[in-house]
Amino acid sequence: MNTNYSAIIEEIVADLKDFDNQGKLPSYIPELAKVNRDKFAICLTTISGQTFKYGDSEEKISIQSISKVLTLSMAISLIGAEIWKRVGVEPSGNPFNSIIQLEYENGIPRNPFINAGAIVVSDILVSKLKNPKQEFLNFVRGLCGKSDIFYNEQVASSEKSVGYMNSSLAYMMKAKGNLENEVEEVLDFYYAQCSLELTCTELSQAFLNFTETGQPFGHGDFVLSESAARRMNALMLTCGFYDESGDFAFEVGLPGKSGVGGAIVALNPQLYCVSVWSPPLNKKGNSSKGMKALELLTTKLGDSIF
Amino acid sequence: MNTNYSAIIEEIVADLKDFDNQGKLPSYIPELAKVNRDKFAICLTTISGQTFKYGDSEEKISIQSISKVLTLSMAISLIGAEIWKRVGVEPSGNPFNSIIQLEYENGIPRNPFINAGAIVVSDILVSKLKNPKQEFLNFVRGLCGKSDIFYNEQVASSEKSVGYMNSSLAYMMKAKGNLENEVEEVLDFYYAQCSLELTCTELSQAFLNFTETGQPFGHGDFVLSESAARRMNALMLTCGFYDESGDFAFEVGLPGKSGVGGAIVALNPQLYCVSVWSPPLNKKGNSSKGMKALELLTTKLGDSIF
Amino acid sequence: MNTNYSAIIEEIVADLKDFDNQGKLPSYIPELAKVNRDKFAICLTTISGQTFKYGDSEEKISIQSISKVLTLSMAISLIGAEIWKRVGVEPSGNPFNSIIQLEYENGIPRNPFINAGAIVVSDILVSKLKNPKQEFLNFVRGLCGKSDIFYNEQVASSEKSVGYMNSSLAYMMKAKGNLENEVEEVLDFYYAQCSLELTCTELSQAFLNFTETGQPFGHGDFVLSESAARRMNALMLTCGFYDESGDFAFEVGLPGKSGVGGAIVALNPQLYCVSVWSPPLNKKGNSSKGMKALELLTTKLGDSIF
Amino acid sequence: MNTNYSAIIEEIVADLKDFDNQGKLPSYIPELAKVNRDKFAICLTTISGQTFKYGDSEEKISIQSISKVLTLSMAISLIGAEIWKRVGVEPSGNPFNSIIQLEYENGIPRNPFINAGAIVVSDILVSKLKNPKQEFLNFVRGLCGKSDIFYNEQVASSEKSVGYMNSSLAYMMKAKGNLENEVEEVLDFYYAQCSLELTCTELSQAFLNFTETGQPFGHGDFVLSESAARRMNALMLTCGFYDESGDFAFEVGLPGKSGVGGAIVALNPQLYCVSVWSPPLNKKGNSSKGMKALELLTTKLGDSIF
Repeated sequence: MNTNYSAIIEEIVADLKDFDNQGKLPSYIPELAKVNRDKFAICLTTISGQTFKYGDSEEKISIQSISKVLTLSMAISLIGAEIWKRVGVEPSGNPFNSIIQLEYENGIPRNPFINAGAIVVSDILVSKLKNPKQEFLNFVRGLCGKSDIFYNEQVASSEKSVGYMNSSLAYMMKAKGNLENEVEEVLDFYYAQCSLELTCTELSQAFLNFTETGQPFGHGDFVLSESAARRMNALMLTCGFYDESGDFAFEVGLPGKSGVGGAIVALNPQLYCVSVWSPPLNKKGNSSKGMKALELLTTKLGDSIF
Repeated sequence: MNTNYSAIIEEIVADLKDFDNQGKLPSYIPELAKVNRDKFAICLTTISGQTFKYGDSEEKISIQSISKVLTLSMAISLIGAEIWKRVGVEPSGNPFNSIIQLEYENGIPRNPFINAGAIVVSDILVSKLKNPKQEFLNFVRGLCGKSDIFYNEQVASSEKSVGYMNSSLAYMMKAKGNLENEVEEVLDFYYAQCSLELTCTELSQAFLNFTETGQPFGHGDFVLSESAARRMNALMLTCGFYDESGDFAFEVGLPGKSGVGGAIVALNPQLYCVSVWSPPLNKKGNSSKGMKALELLTTKLGDSIF
Repeated sequence: MNTNYSAIIEEIVADLKDFDNQGKLPSYIPELAKVNRDKFAICLTTISGQTFKYGDSEEKISIQSISKVLTLSMAISLIGAEIWKRVGVEPSGNPFNSIIQLEYENGIPRNPFINAGAIVVSDILVSKLKNPKQEFLNFVRGLCGKSDIFYNEQVASSEKSVGYMNSSLAYMMKAKGNLENEVEEVLDFYYAQCSLELTCTELSQAFLNFTETGQPFGHGDFVLSESAARRMNALMLTCGFYDESGDFAFEVGLPGKSGVGGAIVALNPQLYCVSVWSPPLNKKGNSSKGMKALELLTTKLGDSIF
Repeated sequence: MNTNYSAIIEEIVADLKDFDNQGKLPSYIPELAKVNRDKFAICLTTISGQTFKYGDSEEKISIQSISKVLTLSMAISLIGAEIWKRVGVEPSGNPFNSIIQLEYENGIPRNPFINAGAIVVSDILVSKLKNPKQEFLNFVRGLCGKSDIFYNEQVASSEKSVGYMNSSLAYMMKAKGNLENEVEEVLDFYYAQCSLELTCTELSQAFLNFTETGQPFGHGDFVLSESAARRMNALMLTCGFYDESGDFAFEVGLPGKSGVGGAIVALNPQLYCVSVWSPPLNKKGNSSKGMKALELLTTKLGDSIF
């Protein structure tokens, strides 16, 4: 297996030099639509802690849905397997189906990585924590071993101001009895978590926790059990890319999670954690160039998990 | 990593001695409803060709949907990536959604392992082969290096006689322009393939092809490329267990495929291929005891792919 | 045609004396669940203004969804046929479909008598009126020629406190661009309108406006054109009883509208307007005994519109 | 009320002289796509038996779905209200929903005028009649008092050759247990009934049976009870125009039924039965010019049933 990560990253960058990016910025979220579409970063951290990076890897990125993996980890650390009574572990099919499915399956979202599922996870954190926003921030800071990690309130309120579909989903789950707290309070936390900003480097370090190292990169005291980490990877693989999860598994073959901020994080549990960032999104809402970069990575490394 | 497979299989058998099997035989398929519900077998073949077995592992089993992986492999060897224009690689969500989805997505099934998808694959084989039934049989015989492998015509005609929902799906795809041949002809081949009978031992050997060995156990001349094999594994992991695929990935963590005959085959691409057989099915249509056996296996081995 | 209305009403009352009412009070609306389930009233007002009544016909009833006909009339008087760009005139199929339909048809509700449709109508009134609640109240008072007509604020807030599904629908339409005002403001008006209280007698008089008289019973200056009145009747016939509209047309054969308060109003455009009240509801949400009473009425009169 | 029908028809014809027909012939049915798109006929028969006609009213037309009213009448005469256990009386919502609905409501079609419902009615006739095709033909001949009424076998086989969606629906109902006979046999009868040919004049006479006359125009011995006739009218009003039923009730205000052959028949139960024919169809599958002609008719007559 080729493990000269530095050379491989150089090759990927070269291969993508003339990448014709058909992706688009998410125009429906005012703050994210303003980002420079040419930003690009890649950062790979090995399980032994070595970091290889390229491009804008020290720039703070709105991690958006990638935060769903982190809130889920925190919720599992709080209530364990109880969580699976309120959210499933099955892929969701297309977005159109997701709202039908909620109605049909009594307000139990199919998995924690679609919006409805992440809203249920938010509800759990709101119920269990005294000061959810601060405590979740501390949790992520611990994972990264860094203190300069913050929410971006402008992004949070920008998304909140147009988040009607999330309100619709949340009220449907409230109607079905699957939200304990007031919808407004839950969504307030939800939009905060989505607005969390990490650099590409921090991202690849935060997710080291799900590799076989069994412990976070930082100095946090959060440790996911080996079995919980494996399951989180299984979930990321089957559900991490919305309606393109099957395709990502098929083309890249690693567990991972994407966000509409244009970041993607993926990992080979035995070897490394990698993050990429390129803002323009494909039709399924995943970073266009980022998907391609990861496809090149596992092709070159020959190390998909399959 | 514990690799005393023989001891592990013994442990699993012991753990399952008092397994309270709430599963049910598939009453809607007359021939399968007659099978002895206490049959049980497990067989593990390592990539180096060693075989460890227990129970009724030399008994012929109706492999049913497991055949979908084999027809797909043959179709890919015939038309390559062209196949993905006619069938997707995304998990399908619940069965209820699958019929809506077909209507909504213009007759393109979400993946080749739901019935609609496998029917499209059958259509491709019917188009490309002179004598589809005989040629597919030869293909499987080659994979296993055995000649005493046959269809069970009674099972095929038993399923055909009650296969109204498959006819409904097939006619919907015909209406949408995604079947080239006559529905009757396609379904005739489809029911034949489902009725294929292999022993548990043969099953674990037939699927060795998808491990890193890169070549079939038998003397067939079919070789799936490494990349094609990886992708097949990705597909099995995300779509191999109907609406319980996410759960299987979550609990077992291996690519695999189940059939309503009560068999399951799964593999760790770097290590082995394993098959289990126990006829009673859980509510999602997967072998109840078989699922449990595989969960025990990866827990004991500590070797899910994640 | 038998037109001794007084005798007919007596017959109906006698026929229903031992009516085994399997209906149930709407437990999900706290205020309505408290109503005495044995209340019963019937009131028929002829187009010449004669009124025949029985039972609790002077008691104020929460008219609930019956108000949807009145808000629609007011909205049409304000913006005319423009309204049909934002809401359809087709029956909606079952309630399960209605949410799919909203998603599928870009937030345009199928008709103004399902909740989503009435919420759009509320949005229009909120946009067009300075003081929507007061002006709508004046409008209804004008139709009835009475001033002691009020909203029941306790009922409105009781429904609002559990109206999560309406919030979900409203936010979905907001997401699709079919609500101009803030969801909270629109729903505030919506719940007020639903809480309007009229006696059975007032109800039968308020709906006289849709008969061939061409003018309201009261002294209001609102006059629906003959063609608009006919169309309102067509809408009531095809869409007035949720998922039981076809059945009502089939069994009773008159345009009408029901509400979860247990009231139903129906009319024969050439002859009369009739209201009934009995709180227990059947499974489709319509007054169980009320439906039966109207079926008896048109059978005895032999005057369905068909 | 203006009852100079002759003059009114002349006016309508004059008004439609420059009608810009955006409608299209049904290209998916080869035989119907060949019809001259300029054909036009209108025929009104009063309940006293007077007939007023214009244009190609003596030309044989493929009545298509209009036959669904006739098979339903015959089925009701054979098994009465039993029929409502196998098919509903509610409007169906959009066509997309209809297939979901079948799946969701256990194979019970929403009403007898959508294809699935008419296929169930065909199944009933196939079960109850010795020679269904001949006996149904005799039934229609009786209604019209004419013997030169035939199926068009070329049209039947043209439709059958492309009727994959009907096969899909039929097999789904068979899977759900709502078809007694073999799908092929039922569809063979179904396509025959659709291919029935009547002139516009015969059509208006055949439907006289549903007016208050209480008896057929012809010499058949079939008499629908007054109550059954009323209910048939209610069904036509709520369900007679596919997904445009609400619109037809709203704009025209008469019970009626359309067919993809471009014919529409409608009736005012107290006065007359009217048929129109113009082959080009609007997007909902109803005759474009025919809909307009009937709208003009009730506007001029001022006699919608509402």
